[in-house]
Amino acid sequence: MSLTPAGKGLRTQLFHLIFESDTPAAKTFDIALIIAILISVAALLLDSVEAYHARFGTVFRYIEWGFTLLFTVELAIRIYCLERPWLYLKSFYGIVDLMAIVPAWLVLVVPGAQSLVLIRILRVLRIFRILRLMEFVGEGRLLLDALKRSLRQIFLFFFSILMVVTLFAALMYAIESPEAGFTSIPISIYWAIVSMTTVGYGDIVPVTPLGKAITVILMLIGYSIIAVPTGVFSAQVIRSIRQDRYSDEACPGCGYDRHEKQALYCLRCGTWLDEYSEDPRKHESSTENDQDT
Amino acid sequence: MSLTPAGKGLRTQLFHLIFESDTPAAKTFDIALIIAILISVAALLLDSVEAYHARFGTVFRYIEWGFTLLFTVELAIRIYCLERPWLYLKSFYGIVDLMAIVPAWLVLVVPGAQSLVLIRILRVLRIFRILRLMEFVGEGRLLLDALKRSLRQIFLFFFSILMVVTLFAALMYAIESPEAGFTSIPISIYWAIVSMTTVGYGDIVPVTPLGKAITVILMLIGYSIIAVPTGVFSAQVIRSIRQDRYSDEACPGCGYDRHEKQALYCLRCGTWLDEYSEDPRKHESSTENDQDT
Amino acid sequence: MSLTPAGKGLRTQLFHLIFESDTPAAKTFDIALIIAILISVAALLLDSVEAYHARFGTVFRYIEWGFTLLFTVELAIRIYCLERPWLYLKSFYGIVDLMAIVPAWLVLVVPGAQSLVLIRILRVLRIFRILRLMEFVGEGRLLLDALKRSLRQIFLFFFSILMVVTLFAALMYAIESPEAGFTSIPISIYWAIVSMTTVGYGDIVPVTPLGKAITVILMLIGYSIIAVPTGVFSAQVIRSIRQDRYSDEACPGCGYDRHEKQALYCLRCGTWLDEYSEDPRKHESSTENDQDT
Amino acid sequence: MSLTPAGKGLRTQLFHLIFESDTPAAKTFDIALIIAILISVAALLLDSVEAYHARFGTVFRYIEWGFTLLFTVELAIRIYCLERPWLYLKSFYGIVDLMAIVPAWLVLVVPGAQSLVLIRILRVLRIFRILRLMEFVGEGRLLLDALKRSLRQIFLFFFSILMVVTLFAALMYAIESPEAGFTSIPISIYWAIVSMTTVGYGDIVPVTPLGKAITVILMLIGYSIIAVPTGVFSAQVIRSIRQDRYSDEACPGCGYDRHEKQALYCLRCGTWLDEYSEDPRKHESSTENDQDT
Repeated sequence: MSLTPAGKGLRTQLFHLIFESDTPAAKTFDIALIIAILISVAALLLDSVEAYHARFGTVFRYIEWGFTLLFTVELAIRIYCLERPWLYLKSFYGIVDLMAIVPAWLVLVVPGAQSLVLIRILRVLRIFRILRLMEFVGEGRLLLDALKRSLRQIFLFFFSILMVVTLFAALMYAIESPEAGFTSIPISIYWAIVSMTTVGYGDIVPVTPLGKAITVILMLIGYSIIAVPTGVFSAQVIRSIRQDRYSDEACPGCGYDRHEKQALYCLRCGTWLDEYSEDPRKHESSTENDQDT
Repeated sequence: MSLTPAGKGLRTQLFHLIFESDTPAAKTFDIALIIAILISVAALLLDSVEAYHARFGTVFRYIEWGFTLLFTVELAIRIYCLERPWLYLKSFYGIVDLMAIVPAWLVLVVPGAQSLVLIRILRVLRIFRILRLMEFVGEGRLLLDALKRSLRQIFLFFFSILMVVTLFAALMYAIESPEAGFTSIPISIYWAIVSMTTVGYGDIVPVTPLGKAITVILMLIGYSIIAVPTGVFSAQVIRSIRQDRYSDEACPGCGYDRHEKQALYCLRCGTWLDEYSEDPRKHESSTENDQDT
Repeated sequence: MSLTPAGKGLRTQLFHLIFESDTPAAKTFDIALIIAILISVAALLLDSVEAYHARFGTVFRYIEWGFTLLFTVELAIRIYCLERPWLYLKSFYGIVDLMAIVPAWLVLVVPGAQSLVLIRILRVLRIFRILRLMEFVGEGRLLLDALKRSLRQIFLFFFSILMVVTLFAALMYAIESPEAGFTSIPISIYWAIVSMTTVGYGDIVPVTPLGKAITVILMLIGYSIIAVPTGVFSAQVIRSIRQDRYSDEACPGCGYDRHEKQALYCLRCGTWLDEYSEDPRKHESSTENDQDT
Repeated sequence: MSLTPAGKGLRTQLFHLIFESDTPAAKTFDIALIIAILISVAALLLDSVEAYHARFGTVFRYIEWGFTLLFTVELAIRIYCLERPWLYLKSFYGIVDLMAIVPAWLVLVVPGAQSLVLIRILRVLRIFRILRLMEFVGEGRLLLDALKRSLRQIFLFFFSILMVVTLFAALMYAIESPEAGFTSIPISIYWAIVSMTTVGYGDIVPVTPLGKAITVILMLIGYSIIAVPTGVFSAQVIRSIRQDRYSDEACPGCGYDRHEKQALYCLRCGTWLDEYSEDPRKHESSTENDQDT
């Protein structure tokens, strides 16, 4: 990142503490932050339970405000020790940092009595703090690599599913009566996705024989079509793993180009593969006879 | 396609505009068509919701007729600028084009008062317009390739599933009472597919201990048998990707064209494949040669 | 099979007609048999529907008896034209043939008034006729091959599932009250399998918070553990396909042993691979210089 | 294991009988133990069914005490014939052995009238005896190997699922009313996992249009994200199988031991690998040599 700290001294030290994780202090900071996020999220979860809210409501409110202040101070320090704070605030983790504190402050600003639903949503949005943990997940580069390469096919897959689902939903809307729950095509689409993804809540269920026959087809499609993204993704993961193992460079002797990365000699003709250093054998053989690749 | 336009002038220009997508004008036409289809489908979906139908019913009717006229005119132009319109109308996209407008016109012709169900189905069939989007999805050739090669095994898979399902359905029909919902074998088949595909609506559920034991077996079969199409399809996708490993160039000696990229000699006739360098055998054998390789 | 026909003449001709499928007459016989099985099964299915049984009950009974006689005569002919009929009757298809007719005859013999349930099961068992279709499915050898090689691991998988399921079922039986449906450990096992296979009927559902927490773990295990048989089977299918493509024999020239089956020359050193015939190049080169390769 | 028996004589003989399985006597002991475990577990399962408990309660109690004594004696012998019994008791199988008998004895010690729930759990814990069967499952090394290598990615997968699930649960808690069952965020998390794993009990179901729309997204994520662990695991199983492709023999030159079976030269030091034939390079270079290969 080009977010390197501005001056030396305190700012640089804070930068290393907060943005890096290679010193013992920075590691301690990371772990403390993870624990803070987890406690803050746990408090949110438990506060939503009526019984706990009644008994520990004020405790939860104190915890909530403590962590909101903590995360606010932390963000302030992050901004302080960066050369170009805007670049950070516009980045993914910057937005997540903001989402972790803004809803809590908005609750204060927005007059609560007027719109309880808005307050409720704002309070719940604080859960997005959990996304801050993503920073610590690390790479998973192999998965992302495979995902990126299957992206186009996965998009095609979802698009096909939506077309199939819309057609089946419209058919079922025409066949089944509103009493069975098929009151509109959008509701039928909801039902079709519930059925095709094999979730099957059972809140809407076909009742006519024809509707059941069509449902059977939809379920069989949903059951077997899952093989498509799985197959594509499996293939891409296998490819990602394999490419990790094989070098791209071909043997200068025979052109064979699927050597494992650690190979020093061609497995087919024994040619020395590393063009930047010399074949140790060369030296040995030059004493008696001259070069033998 | 052999649907090339008839004369020069307007027809040819329209042909390029509608059937191709390599000029800016043609691309604009494509995007406009996609938006028209999406709006038309969205109007259909929303019109099926009672509340929206009551309030915006007439608006939806105007939108509907507008797009029906638009698609009709578009199809007329398509037919006009083609040399052999029948060939197009009999093709997949021709049929989809017809299905996008014919139901709307039929609603006018068929006296609505007589069969409301028919009208309802006709109106819903207009949803098939969504299939017109398939034209823009493009190839997905890799997937189709893998699908085609696994077709026979997927058919075998479905056939086996239907046999297993029929047997379990008949057993459950004999064991469970009609009160539990197992009123006939076809209904039991519906239940068996709901269970085996792991959808599990819960509208029909075994009640006797023996019925539950048999259900357990059916569910375990359904749960694990999904590995079969997934495995087959994965293997085929991997194979499709791997064929990238094969060189496209044909052997100058015998024309065989599925050599692995690293092949030096044709696997069929032994001809030296690399046209940019010389066969080492040639040199050796012409000078003196003893054993090479 | 060692079931070759006894004498010449009629028996041999019948044998070729019934047991083989390489003459036009034999193929016609096969197709007629398939249609007969399908109609007979369809009649069984429809007869189980109350409404159809009331209206077409006698028709179904005639169809039933017609096909029972037909299949009985067919089995008699099969036995007649075989040298060792017992070997056939003890084979898989022989047992299926018997199961297709024995229940129908038993209905006559067993006094129906005494045990209606037995009659019901006997009538339903006639559905096993559908298994006779398996004879026409053919090989699917690749799938069976892969299945056979993953068998041990699939058994391990099922055994592990059953252990996990039993432990979770016992826990839930202790935690949840009988009112929630967890009336015994066997019922809890039924619930655990319904949950783990992601079927989720919803007939038995956890109600206590602790029960829900344990259910969440069980569902996540079930959701992700499916990767195990799928992964194993995928790997085996890929291996089956690959082994189909590569020859087992190594090049006599350089020892490379992963040639595709149709390879005539080694892709690495150009050596002639087929030891039973002569390299066509040899002849050509012998005119000027002697052997290369 | 370093649990070798102490002295000769009886203890050594018992050790071979109980801890090994290569003599006929030891095999008989193993099979007897498996049968004992299965009967004991079956008795536990059936005893939990009200009807059986009423009729055969005392029989089950005798069976229970019989097996508890048997397993206690067996454990005593195991401890007796080991040099360092503590090492065994602290191992996985030692703990399982203890768990198989301790709950039964605790039932005696703990006064039952006071805490029926505790008794109930203790009695159910005896089911852990089933884990003793794991000792006989054997290796499954290939699976464990693949599992171990995908562990990190599977953990990442579960962590991502839990984040997604928490976010969706919080959203649904804000959108849906408590009447629909979304009474708290933890309950919503239970619902979200039920939906995402495609279990879909149907005990809690979205009722608002917005809630249904969000559910649709969650279900599609759950439906397709299963491809990730499956893909990763498939790839790892394939890799495990492929390692069969590598030769076991180490290079005589440098000791490197992961050569592909077809390798002729060591990929690390270029040494000729096949000890039964001579390196073609040797010959060429010793005679005259210009370029080889």
